[in-house]
Amino acid sequence: MKKEGFFETIYAQVYGYVTDADMWVNIGMVLLKIAAIILISRIVLSVVQAAVNRIFQHRKGSKIQMDQRRVDTMRVLVNNIVRYTLYFLAILMILQLLGIDLKPVLVSAGVLGLAVGFGAQSLVRDIITGFFIIFEDQFAVGDVVTINNMTGTVQEIGLRITRVRSWTGEVHIFPNGTITQVTNFSLQNTLSVVDVSVAYEENLNQVEQVLREVLQLAQTELQDIVGEPQILGVQALGPSEVVLRVTAECKPNTHHGVNRNLRAMIRTEFTKRGIQIPYPKIVAMPGKGQA
Amino acid sequence: MKKEGFFETIYAQVYGYVTDADMWVNIGMVLLKIAAIILISRIVLSVVQAAVNRIFQHRKGSKIQMDQRRVDTMRVLVNNIVRYTLYFLAILMILQLLGIDLKPVLVSAGVLGLAVGFGAQSLVRDIITGFFIIFEDQFAVGDVVTINNMTGTVQEIGLRITRVRSWTGEVHIFPNGTITQVTNFSLQNTLSVVDVSVAYEENLNQVEQVLREVLQLAQTELQDIVGEPQILGVQALGPSEVVLRVTAECKPNTHHGVNRNLRAMIRTEFTKRGIQIPYPKIVAMPGKGQA
Amino acid sequence: MKKEGFFETIYAQVYGYVTDADMWVNIGMVLLKIAAIILISRIVLSVVQAAVNRIFQHRKGSKIQMDQRRVDTMRVLVNNIVRYTLYFLAILMILQLLGIDLKPVLVSAGVLGLAVGFGAQSLVRDIITGFFIIFEDQFAVGDVVTINNMTGTVQEIGLRITRVRSWTGEVHIFPNGTITQVTNFSLQNTLSVVDVSVAYEENLNQVEQVLREVLQLAQTELQDIVGEPQILGVQALGPSEVVLRVTAECKPNTHHGVNRNLRAMIRTEFTKRGIQIPYPKIVAMPGKGQA
Amino acid sequence: MKKEGFFETIYAQVYGYVTDADMWVNIGMVLLKIAAIILISRIVLSVVQAAVNRIFQHRKGSKIQMDQRRVDTMRVLVNNIVRYTLYFLAILMILQLLGIDLKPVLVSAGVLGLAVGFGAQSLVRDIITGFFIIFEDQFAVGDVVTINNMTGTVQEIGLRITRVRSWTGEVHIFPNGTITQVTNFSLQNTLSVVDVSVAYEENLNQVEQVLREVLQLAQTELQDIVGEPQILGVQALGPSEVVLRVTAECKPNTHHGVNRNLRAMIRTEFTKRGIQIPYPKIVAMPGKGQA
Amino acid sequence: MKKEGFFETIYAQVYGYVTDADMWVNIGMVLLKIAAIILISRIVLSVVQAAVNRIFQHRKGSKIQMDQRRVDTMRVLVNNIVRYTLYFLAILMILQLLGIDLKPVLVSAGVLGLAVGFGAQSLVRDIITGFFIIFEDQFAVGDVVTINNMTGTVQEIGLRITRVRSWTGEVHIFPNGTITQVTNFSLQNTLSVVDVSVAYEENLNQVEQVLREVLQLAQTELQDIVGEPQILGVQALGPSEVVLRVTAECKPNTHHGVNRNLRAMIRTEFTKRGIQIPYPKIVAMPGKGQA
Amino acid sequence: MKKEGFFETIYAQVYGYVTDADMWVNIGMVLLKIAAIILISRIVLSVVQAAVNRIFQHRKGSKIQMDQRRVDTMRVLVNNIVRYTLYFLAILMILQLLGIDLKPVLVSAGVLGLAVGFGAQSLVRDIITGFFIIFEDQFAVGDVVTINNMTGTVQEIGLRITRVRSWTGEVHIFPNGTITQVTNFSLQNTLSVVDVSVAYEENLNQVEQVLREVLQLAQTELQDIVGEPQILGVQALGPSEVVLRVTAECKPNTHHGVNRNLRAMIRTEFTKRGIQIPYPKIVAMPGKGQA
Amino acid sequence: MKKEGFFETIYAQVYGYVTDADMWVNIGMVLLKIAAIILISRIVLSVVQAAVNRIFQHRKGSKIQMDQRRVDTMRVLVNNIVRYTLYFLAILMILQLLGIDLKPVLVSAGVLGLAVGFGAQSLVRDIITGFFIIFEDQFAVGDVVTINNMTGTVQEIGLRITRVRSWTGEVHIFPNGTITQVTNFSLQNTLSVVDVSVAYEENLNQVEQVLREVLQLAQTELQDIVGEPQILGVQALGPSEVVLRVTAECKPNTHHGVNRNLRAMIRTEFTKRGIQIPYPKIVAMPGKGQA
Repeated sequence: MKKEGFFETIYAQVYGYVTDADMWVNIGMVLLKIAAIILISRIVLSVVQAAVNRIFQHRKGSKIQMDQRRVDTMRVLVNNIVRYTLYFLAILMILQLLGIDLKPVLVSAGVLGLAVGFGAQSLVRDIITGFFIIFEDQFAVGDVVTINNMTGTVQEIGLRITRVRSWTGEVHIFPNGTITQVTNFSLQNTLSVVDVSVAYEENLNQVEQVLREVLQLAQTELQDIVGEPQILGVQALGPSEVVLRVTAECKPNTHHGVNRNLRAMIRTEFTKRGIQIPYPKIVAMPGKGQA
Repeated sequence: MKKEGFFETIYAQVYGYVTDADMWVNIGMVLLKIAAIILISRIVLSVVQAAVNRIFQHRKGSKIQMDQRRVDTMRVLVNNIVRYTLYFLAILMILQLLGIDLKPVLVSAGVLGLAVGFGAQSLVRDIITGFFIIFEDQFAVGDVVTINNMTGTVQEIGLRITRVRSWTGEVHIFPNGTITQVTNFSLQNTLSVVDVSVAYEENLNQVEQVLREVLQLAQTELQDIVGEPQILGVQALGPSEVVLRVTAECKPNTHHGVNRNLRAMIRTEFTKRGIQIPYPKIVAMPGKGQA
Repeated sequence: MKKEGFFETIYAQVYGYVTDADMWVNIGMVLLKIAAIILISRIVLSVVQAAVNRIFQHRKGSKIQMDQRRVDTMRVLVNNIVRYTLYFLAILMILQLLGIDLKPVLVSAGVLGLAVGFGAQSLVRDIITGFFIIFEDQFAVGDVVTINNMTGTVQEIGLRITRVRSWTGEVHIFPNGTITQVTNFSLQNTLSVVDVSVAYEENLNQVEQVLREVLQLAQTELQDIVGEPQILGVQALGPSEVVLRVTAECKPNTHHGVNRNLRAMIRTEFTKRGIQIPYPKIVAMPGKGQA
Repeated sequence: MKKEGFFETIYAQVYGYVTDADMWVNIGMVLLKIAAIILISRIVLSVVQAAVNRIFQHRKGSKIQMDQRRVDTMRVLVNNIVRYTLYFLAILMILQLLGIDLKPVLVSAGVLGLAVGFGAQSLVRDIITGFFIIFEDQFAVGDVVTINNMTGTVQEIGLRITRVRSWTGEVHIFPNGTITQVTNFSLQNTLSVVDVSVAYEENLNQVEQVLREVLQLAQTELQDIVGEPQILGVQALGPSEVVLRVTAECKPNTHHGVNRNLRAMIRTEFTKRGIQIPYPKIVAMPGKGQA
Repeated sequence: MKKEGFFETIYAQVYGYVTDADMWVNIGMVLLKIAAIILISRIVLSVVQAAVNRIFQHRKGSKIQMDQRRVDTMRVLVNNIVRYTLYFLAILMILQLLGIDLKPVLVSAGVLGLAVGFGAQSLVRDIITGFFIIFEDQFAVGDVVTINNMTGTVQEIGLRITRVRSWTGEVHIFPNGTITQVTNFSLQNTLSVVDVSVAYEENLNQVEQVLREVLQLAQTELQDIVGEPQILGVQALGPSEVVLRVTAECKPNTHHGVNRNLRAMIRTEFTKRGIQIPYPKIVAMPGKGQA
Repeated sequence: MKKEGFFETIYAQVYGYVTDADMWVNIGMVLLKIAAIILISRIVLSVVQAAVNRIFQHRKGSKIQMDQRRVDTMRVLVNNIVRYTLYFLAILMILQLLGIDLKPVLVSAGVLGLAVGFGAQSLVRDIITGFFIIFEDQFAVGDVVTINNMTGTVQEIGLRITRVRSWTGEVHIFPNGTITQVTNFSLQNTLSVVDVSVAYEENLNQVEQVLREVLQLAQTELQDIVGEPQILGVQALGPSEVVLRVTAECKPNTHHGVNRNLRAMIRTEFTKRGIQIPYPKIVAMPGKGQA
Repeated sequence: MKKEGFFETIYAQVYGYVTDADMWVNIGMVLLKIAAIILISRIVLSVVQAAVNRIFQHRKGSKIQMDQRRVDTMRVLVNNIVRYTLYFLAILMILQLLGIDLKPVLVSAGVLGLAVGFGAQSLVRDIITGFFIIFEDQFAVGDVVTINNMTGTVQEIGLRITRVRSWTGEVHIFPNGTITQVTNFSLQNTLSVVDVSVAYEENLNQVEQVLREVLQLAQTELQDIVGEPQILGVQALGPSEVVLRVTAECKPNTHHGVNRNLRAMIRTEFTKRGIQIPYPKIVAMPGKGQA
């Protein structure tokens, strides 16, 4: 550094800068990279949107039951989320290329993202569980199921929720992530179970004989019954009655009707044969009166 | 470095600094970047605020029911949060450009942000769930629903809470995130279910005949009944009574009224026909007295 | 590096250091940055404290009900926390400028901050929920509400807790974050619901006629009743009684009193008209005695 | 830097760049590394997919019971997830080699990954628990178990869920992670426990004699009984009855049938021997009447 | 680099090192920094320990009730924790200055700190909640409160726990963080509520007249009663009795005694006036006997 | 840089590269480091596998009861996990030495690891709790314990689960981490507690005399009784009976049998001495009939 | 770089390397640092192990009750964990000095540490809570306490668990972290509370007179009673009886015995004075019979 005039020095150096190939090459590189980022963003966007569209189209013919209007809304929503996330990332990366340190923005975005992510984890769980409910054939639309103690017919299995219509007409709606225990009544033959009480005074053999006749009749008359009904035996010895248990395998989810029919047939036959109704009995002992 | 006079050395070097183009270019770059940060902050602020305003305007005509005053308060609140967050970020980035290491500030802000984020996760969950309740048409204002065992008419579905007015007039308020199971009574026809007890001594066929007549009458008299009421059969064999179940499909959420009418009609008819009331029966056996 | 005398070498180099403008400039820059950090800390402190003071002043005229003494204590507390946090951050940043690596301190502070943050998340949740309770008008001081199965009149809605005075005089205190379900009795007219039991032997038409007269009288005598009371119909067929339900819309939260008046009026009228009290009935059948 | 013509300077420097071996070597190195990344990705992909295929093939002969169709779907799914994850990683690493800073992308991907990971943790727990259920032989297909208060025969132990068929035909489906307490009835002989009530008036020694005879008969007649049944003694002194407990070890999960048979045999024998039925007893003391 | 003798070369270079001012300056700087770290550690330690001592001294005259011995133990404990933490940090920072990379140690310490922090979060929550219980005057020593369904007199409010002495003498101890719902009986007048049952056969007007006289007497005799007792009306129509509700505002937490006195006075007066005791009534209808 | 022929320049520079010792030394260093990594990996692998084998061998003679087949499977599993984890780490470190930035891979692996870690935390808790159950001698194989309300004999204490066989033969299986409250019946003498009801009409002194004689007899006859049985006194005054409590210390877990024997002996003695059975008593007052 | 013979160039450069003092100094520094790490590790190990040994020795004379054998096992365990952790850290730091980048290892170790830390958090909580139970004197060995609804005498307060022996002999074991509510019966005098039922027909004044005499007698006869017993008054008006409450302050945890004695004395005195037993009363009204 020789002593020169101040402005000559400045001039010389600025001239050096302007004619410095390094700088131009650098600027060229940066522009090239920015172009690359924009290009890649657009490609990723197209690919992801195509994938999203295909997923939602694919779903139409699948086991998930969703309203077409809701599917369209969802697709637009997902597309927009993807688009603005990509734009945001592209802008951040370009700013970084221009030499602006984005640490504060990244820390803020990360913290915000984590907070939202924690709040949204039940949403993620709903969707994952929903996927597995369908994948594992836990239940299908039309099945009679008990979910979290509410029973009804499955109306719709969606991305996030399942709708079940109870037999009395109300619609129960469950987020899929809360479905921790499912009981499906439509997969297998169900068992009709009727407990019949008779007085201790009755002859058990005779009662079983009568029951056997009723069950034989039931098997021929009730079409929902599959196979031969059975008398299991003495289920309990109550305070005033002997409880006999009768079972009949029947078609899936028809046991409520079979139960009612069996109860009516048994009651009618018992009345006909004079088998006593086991009213509660009590032994009343006379005591000394109080003043 | 040759031995020169001390002050000449200092002078020469300071002179070198002042005339060093690198420094001026650096300063220029920093000023340029600061200007860019301020500019981008303002653009982002305008864009986000326009978006916020549009979201809140858009909501007015939508399914979310919010008081206009509350919407305005909310908009101002969100705008202010965005504004001060952006200012904070811009200041941090400018400080960083000026060569001040912000690691302690970033760590503190990150930890604070995480703590607040954890505390706020139920808020995030409320809003996400609220969005899906509306998007999935789980219920609408005016529907009769049961949410977490409280039943009533939906009054308002808000960003964070849902208000339900019970039939006795109290208003239940639920954060949306706590709504894990919804039962909607207004989507489908509901079923009126009446259990009728008769004494074991009655003739079941005759009782069913009477019931059939009552139901026929009910179908013509009660306008809420849709389709033909049915006698399901013997629902239970109680200690002193046979329980018969009667059902009638009726318009959504009218089953309480239909139930009451059916009960009254059946009771009146039974009294007229002399069908016994199944008072509890007990067999009292005399025992030996105690001293 | 030529062979020179040892001390000359040292001397030359130290001299070079002392006369090195870079070092002085560096020292100057560091001093400048320290001054900037101190200045910015003070500005931030003033701004934040002014904001804190304004928030707490603003609250005096607002819906939050807080004791003035507690507000002052809280303001001093928040100011102190802000002050010492800023001092701590400023010291850290100055140390860093002086070239001391603070990674161990930052990791420790971060871990400690996270631990405290996790422990304090219920505090954050309390305050956020409290803000929304007020913002959403869930209830106001003076309303009768049921919160988590405890009913009473709202006495105070604070930053972190809500106080409710039950009608028997005890004060229930709830952290706002635990208030997950609110039932407000003061927003809407409430419904007086009285269930009246009559014996099966009574004529239902005649009973309803008597009830209608009583309700007409009640409507004119009881000022809390709004609109016309109604006989809903047969609510249940009990073992020994028919249950009739009577309702009357009344002013918010006056239904307890109206219920009592209706019960007294109905009972008096029933006694006057000779409508039987439905004492439990039992059919006692004589059995054979045991030995 | 001498004063030359502007374009000569530029030309000279660009020429210098083009002929700079460093640059060509660098470009060569980058290309080499990209090739290495692609190669390693492909190798990893092949290895992982082979492993996946082997795992799913291996499972066919194992204790996990899965439908072949579902296994295939699962394999394709896992393969696709692995493939696209590797592609994504390879692209990121290549971009980084090209000098594009990926911090924003990495932060976003990390936050998203954490959010999904939190939501998916119940999925991970299901699979880990499922693995241990099989590894620890907690139960096998065909065993009768009680899981979370639902009893039935194990139908299928899958990767994520277990299916249990109750004896009445409904199928209970449990995510493995919710199985916190298992009761297995098929591992050991079960104990038939029958409580027999007799009146206080009976002679206990005589009753025990009768019971002993019945049990002896039962041991020879009922094939499910293993070893000698026992009279444990007086289990309780009820208000009107002495309760005697009788036990009989029987083959795994046959106790329900043995219970019923024992009850019937004891009841029949007691009737034959004239041992009184312990009907509830009450001492009725005459009081002074009320007006 | 010319070919010289090997050892000359080594010698020359080592000599260069030893005479290199940079190295000596560096060593000087490092020593200076170490001294600074030690100095700052000592200052921070003194400041923090003074603060800790002051906090614990300050607490002696405050609302927190702590045993002096325990306060001293706690102070020593906190001082030791602060001391060893600072020593640990100072050693880490000095090691780092000496050029030893501490990343493994920091990662280990961070993970350990997080694990302990998670385990200790209930401790943090206890202390924060305890602070707010005192700050918000939720209850004071001597108040009668119900905390988590346990009622008693507050004995001690500590840093982490609260002690409550029930009226039967046992001491309940609650960690402050588990106190989610407090009911305080000592802040307001409590209400004595007595439900009086009379037979349906009584004349309600006459009964109310008698009650009114009793209440007037009670108001003059019982000093805990504040203001005029009231007959609220017919609270319920039971199966055999009419329930009348009587209330009397009384001094805080004296309602148990007032209740007992009112019950005794009413019962005595009723006996005197011949108002019937509403013994359970039953209508026994004779039925046909069973065989 | 002088103007030379293009290819000469390139040639010269490439020649420079090839003959540059730095590069060769670098390559040598990298190869050396790779060799070191491989060597260290192998050593670590051997050490860890030896440790694993020793742990599993050591366990055979210890308190943990595990099937040999399962121990072997577990050892192979753990060895494989260790092996592949080490291979994975070694490959990553070699790639890094070759200058490939692994940040994307590390972020992905970290996120995946965290997700799996969260899902596996109940597994970790199970094993830690299991270790402490054994270390603290909470119970041993053969003890009779109550865990989470299920009682039985401990069959096996494993790494992750504990098996308990109930006295009726079913096997309860608990993950160790869910064992939060253990009641052990085999550590101490248990107390036989028998409550004896006698009519109010009996003379308490005489009854106690009889009881004392029975207990003296029991002490000599029943070998499980340790020390002298005691009459505690009047435990309750029931509606129709006085309840006396009798206790007898007996050998661990023999109280069920002693209870049954005491009940039988007391009942027999009472019958012999004519002490009345306290049948429920009721005072029936005649009322006026209803129409 | 002049054109020389290839091998001369290589030779010259390698020679340069070998004679380069920088390298030798570097190697020296690294060796020095490794020595320092090993030295510091050893010192830390000794200090920590001495501390561990002192802690466990110190505990022997303290309030924590631990078996000596278990203390020794624990000390060895903690020492080993510390030793191997330090070895692991030292090896990592030495590898880093040798220029091997350990990021993959650190990430893996961090993730693994976090996973284990999460699983172990209940262990940390147990120990922290245990420390506070002892520090706060919540209970001591020998106290009678109720923890989580299980009552008994404290047998042992350990590092992680507390053992309580119920009065019937079973030992309850609680992890300290699950002890959220403690009731201590041994800190204060307890109150004996006896509710005495008398018929409505009795004269209350006369009954109270009798009670007063009994209580006076009890105060002199029962040594556990402290101060004067009291008749609180009419606790309830039952369906057939007036309930009087009697209390007596007695020595800590002696109330069960006092209760029994008071009940016996009162019952005996009542029988002597002819005060009626309040058997349940019922008014039986004759109804019309059913067919």
